[in-house]
Parts: sequence; structure tokens; C-alpha cells
Amino acid sequence: MKVSNLLIETLRDAPGDCIIESQKLMTRGGYMKYMHNGIYSLFAPTKRMTKKIENIIREEMDRIDGQEVMFPVVMPASLWEESGRYTSIGSEMARFKDRSGNGVVLGMTHEEAAVHLARNTANSYAQYPFMIYQIQTKFRDEPRCRGGLIRVREFTMKDAYSFHTSQEDLEKYYDRAYVAYERIFKRAGAKNVIAVKSDSGMMGGSISHEFMLLTDIGEDTLAICPECGYKANMEAADVKVENVAGEKEELKKVHTPDIKTIEDLCKFLSIPADKLCKAVVYQKNLTDEYIIVFIRGDLDVNETKLRNYVGEEIHPAIITEESGIVAGFIGAVNQNAKAQIIFDKSLEGIESTVCGANEVDYHYTGFNVERDYGKVDYVDVAKIFEGALCPCCSKKTITISNGIEVGNIFQLGTKYTKSMNMTYLDQNGVAQNPIMGCYGIGVGRLVASICEESHDDYGPIWPISIAPWHVEICNLRRKNEEVTALCEKLYDELQANKVEVLYDDRDMRPGSMFADADLFGIPVRVVVSPKTMERGVVEVSYRDKSFKGDIAIDEAAEKITEMVNELLKQYDI
Amino acid sequence: MKVSNLLIETLRDAPGDCIIESQKLMTRGGYMKYMHNGIYSLFAPTKRMTKKIENIIREEMDRIDGQEVMFPVVMPASLWEESGRYTSIGSEMARFKDRSGNGVVLGMTHEEAAVHLARNTANSYAQYPFMIYQIQTKFRDEPRCRGGLIRVREFTMKDAYSFHTSQEDLEKYYDRAYVAYERIFKRAGAKNVIAVKSDSGMMGGSISHEFMLLTDIGEDTLAICPECGYKANMEAADVKVENVAGEKEELKKVHTPDIKTIEDLCKFLSIPADKLCKAVVYQKNLTDEYIIVFIRGDLDVNETKLRNYVGEEIHPAIITEESGIVAGFIGAVNQNAKAQIIFDKSLEGIESTVCGANEVDYHYTGFNVERDYGKVDYVDVAKIFEGALCPCCSKKTITISNGIEVGNIFQLGTKYTKSMNMTYLDQNGVAQNPIMGCYGIGVGRLVASICEESHDDYGPIWPISIAPWHVEICNLRRKNEEVTALCEKLYDELQANKVEVLYDDRDMRPGSMFADADLFGIPVRVVVSPKTMERGVVEVSYRDKSFKGDIAIDEAAEKITEMVNELLKQYDI
Repeated sequence: MKVSNLLIETLRDAPGDCIIESQKLMTRGGYMKYMHNGIYSLFAPTKRMTKKIENIIREEMDRIDGQEVMFPVVMPASLWEESGRYTSIGSEMARFKDRSGNGVVLGMTHEEAAVHLARNTANSYAQYPFMIYQIQTKFRDEPRCRGGLIRVREFTMKDAYSFHTSQEDLEKYYDRAYVAYERIFKRAGAKNVIAVKSDSGMMGGSISHEFMLLTDIGEDTLAICPECGYKANMEAADVKVENVAGEKEELKKVHTPDIKTIEDLCKFLSIPADKLCKAVVYQKNLTDEYIIVFIRGDLDVNETKLRNYVGEEIHPAIITEESGIVAGFIGAVNQNAKAQIIFDKSLEGIESTVCGANEVDYHYTGFNVERDYGKVDYVDVAKIFEGALCPCCSKKTITISNGIEVGNIFQLGTKYTKSMNMTYLDQNGVAQNPIMGCYGIGVGRLVASICEESHDDYGPIWPISIAPWHVEICNLRRKNEEVTALCEKLYDELQANKVEVLYDDRDMRPGSMFADADLFGIPVRVVVSPKTMERGVVEVSYRDKSFKGDIAIDEAAEKITEMVNELLKQYDI
Repeated sequence: MKVSNLLIETLRDAPGDCIIESQKLMTRGGYMKYMHNGIYSLFAPTKRMTKKIENIIREEMDRIDGQEVMFPVVMPASLWEESGRYTSIGSEMARFKDRSGNGVVLGMTHEEAAVHLARNTANSYAQYPFMIYQIQTKFRDEPRCRGGLIRVREFTMKDAYSFHTSQEDLEKYYDRAYVAYERIFKRAGAKNVIAVKSDSGMMGGSISHEFMLLTDIGEDTLAICPECGYKANMEAADVKVENVAGEKEELKKVHTPDIKTIEDLCKFLSIPADKLCKAVVYQKNLTDEYIIVFIRGDLDVNETKLRNYVGEEIHPAIITEESGIVAGFIGAVNQNAKAQIIFDKSLEGIESTVCGANEVDYHYTGFNVERDYGKVDYVDVAKIFEGALCPCCSKKTITISNGIEVGNIFQLGTKYTKSMNMTYLDQNGVAQNPIMGCYGIGVGRLVASICEESHDDYGPIWPISIAPWHVEICNLRRKNEEVTALCEKLYDELQANKVEVLYDDRDMRPGSMFADADLFGIPVRVVVSPKTMERGVVEVSYRDKSFKGDIAIDEAAEKITEMVNELLKQYDI
């Protein structure tokens, strides 16, 4: 492709509303065009990249025996009513009525469609296991679009669905998918991707992992143990505490005037926060019922874990006078409010702690949960923190990092096959619900994430496996016939060698051409000018600055082809 | 791929609601699954075919300097308001409100998006011409879905948009696109595709062509001249008539009691229908204004041509008493109704004809348009017919055929660039609107259309260029170790030679396996059984029955690979 034929516009400066580097550089480089909130068109270079990522994904999905199929974007509401998600998913799902007045939805994920396709087709155990996948446009009416292609409303996603006759078989396949995902990210040139244990959220099912590209701008928070390799999304991370039991003390009501915060209370009583039994109050979304969580004073509640335990959506409470809850002085002793009471595991094994007295300006000291409240089932609903004990190896090693979710895999179980009545006959002729797994990767987000981890101040540094072109030829003197003739010859020869070449054939100042080349981010750059021709060479450099050197003109096509093939091999391309 | 791993279900009989052969065979063969009116999921074999067609399309679009881009499916209503199509397109466009209450539409075509992408980017004449295309899901809320994948609501389409600085340049490019389309259909194995002049409909613009696959089940009607090659959609076909002028006669009112039809009148007056001046009445949709078309008695009105002439939507009239139109006796003389009067070209040059007298039970004979009504501009709004004069070579050669539209190309002009205010600076620094062309192909419809023209009673006969696999191996005795070992060996060897193989490894009766193989429609079939092994051969046959023969076992992989490559070469694959 010649740059003069390319529909693209590079900008000297990024618009003011760009918040992260990849967004700035991809906007300046003419990779996408904003059309509407979270909705973009992609220019040719980006489309070339997404196609390459899609091909890598296809190869790896086919390698684990996947079959590519195609589900509709627009689906009847009735199908989503079968699974119950038509009502359980909120306004992020786009819905409308078709011309006949039938409710339809835009697919944001395709579990229902996968079951619809396979049900009544895979009727016998002998047809299992199998995996079907598609690469397609999805729409999620995301309230918080951000960061260019990082978080959008319309996106291309690979989504895969596997069907099994036993949990063991699903787990075996899940491991293969895990490995396939590692290969996909490696081959696409994403360097810092790790798999973390995750919360299954609206997908249902139990075990799931997210593949996170580590970067400071990531919205997800991850707990990582560098010692044993434990990795989890903070939303899903177990919290382990080691409590010093301490001595049993007498329960004693203490006047604590004007004490409003944990800090004030610690200061007033001269004790550390972990000696407190803090109360945090939530309400259930549907019924407004209160939930009071008691947790060690130095810890916070993890709302995702709490929601999963409670089994429905919750929100921080609005405490009314009628509720009987005495805000600021909530305790477990003599707690008469109508509320679900939960004790976090962090309070287990502490003999004596401090809690509110359910009376303004009073707390209890010497509170012993079992003695003063009764037998309780402790639940882990705490939020993990930097320096916490690793829930796996028990060392104080947990570090907190940020990451962008670039893929996820879920063990779904029979959530969808049961609700949608998909069965097969097992070896004994008995009808069974297949067990499902599902596996997603967002293509556009991966491009942006790779840019986020792989760029310098001047532009993206694309890995050659997904770069829009392998080589860029910069013609520094368009009007010089010899220079132009050599550029054209190289362009033809390289393309004949199956090297993908972007040829900047524009008549412009070298400074501007190099600035654009930095924005294009092509791995191998070839510069031809009257000066290089005088020396009988072309100048070759790598975008990542790992190589720069002269190559003799008559060896150029051959040598550059070798270099490109060598680079591609590193990514199994 | 082994059939045992393939998620697919073949049916002995097609469901009763299948109306055409391709739909029956593709339903029986497990190519797609009905989800909702006009909405299907595609099984793996179909997805393999659509990918192959998409690749052929890509190669041909790239060959004419196209750049693949990606537009959104969900677009803001405001963009479509710019072009005016938000209101001019009816209920076939899906619309809804997003979570912020903004109107959005689902793309059914992407002229607006193409202009949005290119506007403010292609600012200088030096950046022209260029062509951008995408291959993507579209949704059109079609009221009359039919024939499986032939007419659906959700479909994958390649849509391309070219931008030019002059009409001449557009025309030059249009010709290249025309040739690219011919190559696409040829390479995809569609045998009977012709380009016909078409009506531009809601796309706007003037010159356009439809690529029609000729088949009796086609919904479009085409006028073709086998002599000179004139081809047009009946909607757009010009009508040429040769009138015998006859003698001028006196205008005379004749009592024609109980004469209601053209036939009755001809009989009553003993004249042929082409001596009559028939009136056909329409109304404009928006204003209800009447339109009376006078046309030669043996011809019909072409509503598309009439609509284009009138410049707005029309419908057959409901004639009220107040209208002043005397149904059954409508004539041009003393016509006092408030209506637009149109004379079809077929009346030009006739000295004497018969028309209604605008009075119940009376007609005029001897009606001479110019003498008795006045000077008129004759307009061609007649429908062409079998045996009509060719509008090009003037011979009486027109034949009428049916076709399915598999592609179209339009010269759009500046309809979109003007309304959406896209400009570039020309060589003199003057702002100009670029001139556009657009070019579409429906991928799924093409698959179904090829099945429609290329099948027998037992299944589709896929051209090798788009067939899901090149070769099918039928293992007729799964339990025989030698047979199975040979099948596996052939399967591996052929795949190593880059031949795509479907291996039917199921333990089933030969009759059923062959029936399925017919439905799979794979071009080359290889049968292995104890009998063929005894003879030291495998049996090879072509699905289209053009070859059947034995090949020695040790030469099999090599010979079959050669055969496949030979077949592929015929399609430039």
C-alpha cells in the first residue's frame, strides 16, 4: 500500500479529551474515528491489525478442535427469556421492537444462541465434547466508555462455547483453552498478560479466569503473590488473616462522645484499627432489606464477594431513623434492627474487640463475638490489600496491580442448558444437561491494550505479528528519480517475497515523514535518500530501536525479507 | 475435520415450510438454523463457505485498490438525519434509543458512515480517488423474508464506497468495479450471473447495475435481448414501441353500455387493444394527489418508472366520487378532475385512438392527442414485455427471465457528500463535493443462490472455490482396522498437502453415509471399503458426476491432491 492512496489522517496533537496514551497515539495516528459515544469506525491499518489478531485466534481455536460458526447479532427476546437473562441483565443490553412488534435484543454475549444452535442437534453423548466459536460484532450499552478502543459499546469479540458430558471433561478442556489463550496473547505480542481467578458475574458458573494485561491505566485491580504465583482479580480474591487472639475481657459500655470515625475511635481508645469490629451497612436492591457486615476495623468490604454471598444485587445503605440502625455506633450486641447480620472471617478467633453499642455516643469494649452475640458462620467478604497474607502460600506477599481484561474463560456448568432445556442421552439412555464452558476475547481492546504497553512518546510500537504492515519504506526525496525508482523496485521485490509493505511515497519533509512513520508503528523501517544512495545502501531500523544499520542496495530485498521472517518466527507466524 | 466432531444434523426430509430447492437442501444438510423470522445461525460448513467467498471478495476489492475498513453496526440517528435518510427510509430500518435516550439505528447500508469516515480526512484533491470497503453484519427489517438465506433480515454484506473528483473518474472506476464483480461471481462458481441496468431506488444516484443470478425462483424480473446483449431489470427497462400512425379520424362520442374492461371495449368496437388509449390512476402517498397515466391499451404501467418520474412514492388510486374521475370511462378530453396527467410514449405518433369520455357508458373514438388534448411531453412509464422491441437494437427480441440479485453497483453522484457537507479543495483551492460510487454484495445470499443453481435432487453441488471442504473421505467400514488405518493415513497426507478434508469416520450404513455426503456437497469424494482395498484402490468421484474412477492406494494422496489443485485453478484459487 502506498501512503498516498491510504485514507488516513495523522494529527500533530491529540484532542484534549484523550485520557490515556494508547488513545492519544491511536487518535493521532489515524487508527479510528469517533462516531458516537463508544462507537468508532476503524481505518484500514486498524482493520489490518484486527484481521491478523482474528487469524491468530482462529488458528488457536481450531487447534483446540473449535468449529467456527456464526450467531446473529439481533436475537429474539424470547430466547433470552428462556435463560432468564432478559430480565436479569439491565440497561447495558440494547432492546427494541421489530416491525412486527416482537421484542429483540442485540447480542452482548451468545450463550443463549450457542445453546439454541446445539440443542436438538447434539442429542447423543457420542457427539460430545465439542466447541463452537464465532468472531463477531457485539453491542453492550456501556455507561462508562473510556480510553478509545479500551472500553466501547460496539466491539468485535471472539466468543467460544464448549459442551461436555462431565465436569472432568469440562475441566480438561478448560485447561486446553487456558493454554490456547496464553498462546494467543503471546503470538499477538502482548507481553504482560497474566491469568487471574475472577468473579463470574452475570455469566453464572463457578470457576473462571480473566486474562489481564498489566498496566497502570487498567481499571481492574489484581492481587498477585510473587512468591507462589497466586493471582486473582481483587473482586474475587480470598482474604486470609492471622489474628492475635489476645485476652478475653469483660464487655463494658464506654462513653465515646463525638466519636464519628474509626480513626477517632482508635485515637480515643488508644488501640489499633485491627482491634475494632467495624460495621458496614448495605441494602438489597429488590427488597431494601438491610445487611450489616461486621468486619475487622482495618479491612474493607468487597462488595462483589458480598453480593455473591447474598445472592442478589446490593448497594450501600441509606440509613433511615425508622430502620433502628444507629449510624456511627452500630454493634452486634443488642442489635434490634431488622437486618441480615454477617460476620467477616477477619473477626474469627479474636477474643476481645470494640464495637458500637447501638446507642449514640457509646461503644462496647471487650466484645467477644461468640460469648456476647452467639455462634456465627464467618464469611469471607473482605477486600484484599497490598501486603496481605497470600491466601495460597500464607506469606505476607500480596501486591496490588492494575490490569485491563483482554480475555476471560468461564466454567458455566449447566446454568444455560438447564434453563433452556438442552439435553442429550447418556450411555444409559438417560437425558442429561450438557455442561458448558465459555471463552471470550475482545479484539479491538486487545489492539489498544498492546499499544498501551508497547509505545514510546512518538507512537505505537506494533509487534510484527499484528502490525498493519511488516515494513515501511520512506522515500525521502520523491522528486529524485533514482531514489523513487529504487523505492518502487524495493516495494515490488519485497511484496513479491510476501512481505507486507507500506510505502510512503509522499513528497514531504523528512521530519514529518518520520513523525508519521513513528505513528504508523511499523516494525521495520527502510529509508532511501540521495545520501543513502551515494553510500550504496538503504538504512534499516527497527521501530523498537533494537537495530539500526545500513544494507547494501543489491542485497536489500533479500536481507530485509530474512529479517522480517526472522521476526515473524518469534511469534509463530 | 472429522464428521464425528462436527456439530451438524442432516434431515431425511425438509420441513414443510421450505419453499425453494436451495432452502430445502440447505435445511436438510444442516447448513443453518432458524432462530427468528429472517434470522439464522450458521453451522460450521456454511461459515467455512462464507469465509471463502469473503476472501475472494477481499482479493478482488484489493485488486481494484480498495482498503478494508470497519464501520459500526449501531449508528447515531443524527448521522442519518444529515443525509435525510432517517426520515426517508421506512420501517425496514431498525431504530431504538440507547441508555442515554439518544436515537440510534442499525446499519442496513453505510453511505453515511463512509462519508463520516472520509470527511475531514480526504481534504485535498491529491488524496483522490480512493475506495473503502467493509464486510459486516447488516440488519434490514424486511417484511417478506423467504427462501432460507435468500431473503433475510440479518446478513453479512460487503459494501464498498469510492470517492472521486470527477464524473469521468467515477465512471472509469465504476467499470473496474463492474469487472471485479464479474470476477468475484465467476471465482465463487456462480455460473449464470448477468449484470442488468437497474433502478437506483433509495440509494439515490443515476446509473446503476444489478448482478442477477438467473433462476426461475428469482423475485426480480429481467428484460434481456439475446441479439445485442441489452439487459435490464424490468423495473428500469426502457420501452420502445413502433406505432402504425393510421388515419386521422373525427372525434366522436360513442355509447358503450355496460363496457367495463379493455377486452369488452375491444370486442364491442372490433379493434385491437393497441388502438386504445387506456387510463391508469395512481395517487401520491404524501398528498393523495391523483395521477392519471394514459398508455396504449395493450401495455401496462411500470410503477417504478412512474415513481421515479413523479419523484415520490405512489400507490394505485382509490377513486372517490368527489374526485371527479369517472372510473371505467376515463379520458383526456374534457378531463376536469384535479390530477397530474401523464401520457406514455406508447401513444406518440398514433393519429387516432379510443379513450373514455369521462361520462358513464361513453367513449370517444377518433381521439388524436395533440388535436383534441393539446401538446404533451410523452414520458416512458410502460412495462416491458416478452417479445417487445429491444430498446437498444430495436429488434423484437426481448425475453423475460427471473433472477436473484446477488450484487449491485451504483453511481451515487454527490447525493451524500452534498447533504453531509463533505468537501475537498480542488487544484484551484475551491471547495468541491466528491462524487461517490457504492458497490454491494450479500455473502449469505450468494451461497444460497449458488446452491439454487447448482444442486441435484440429493443435495448441493458446491463449486470447489467455496465448498466447505475440497475432499470428503467416506469410511464404509469403520470397524475394519485396515480400512480405518488407510482412511486416517489419507486424511493426514491430504491435509499435509493443504487439501481441506472432511472425513466421515462414523460407523453407519453406506447408504446413509452417501446420502449425507450428497447433502454435504463436497466436490471430490473418496470411498474406502474392504472391497476397494481388495482391489488395491480407492474410489474417487466428483459430486457433479463429471468423473468417477479408481486410484491405486499408494498414488491416492498425490493424485487426489493434483485433482483438487486442478479444479481450484479453474477458479483462480
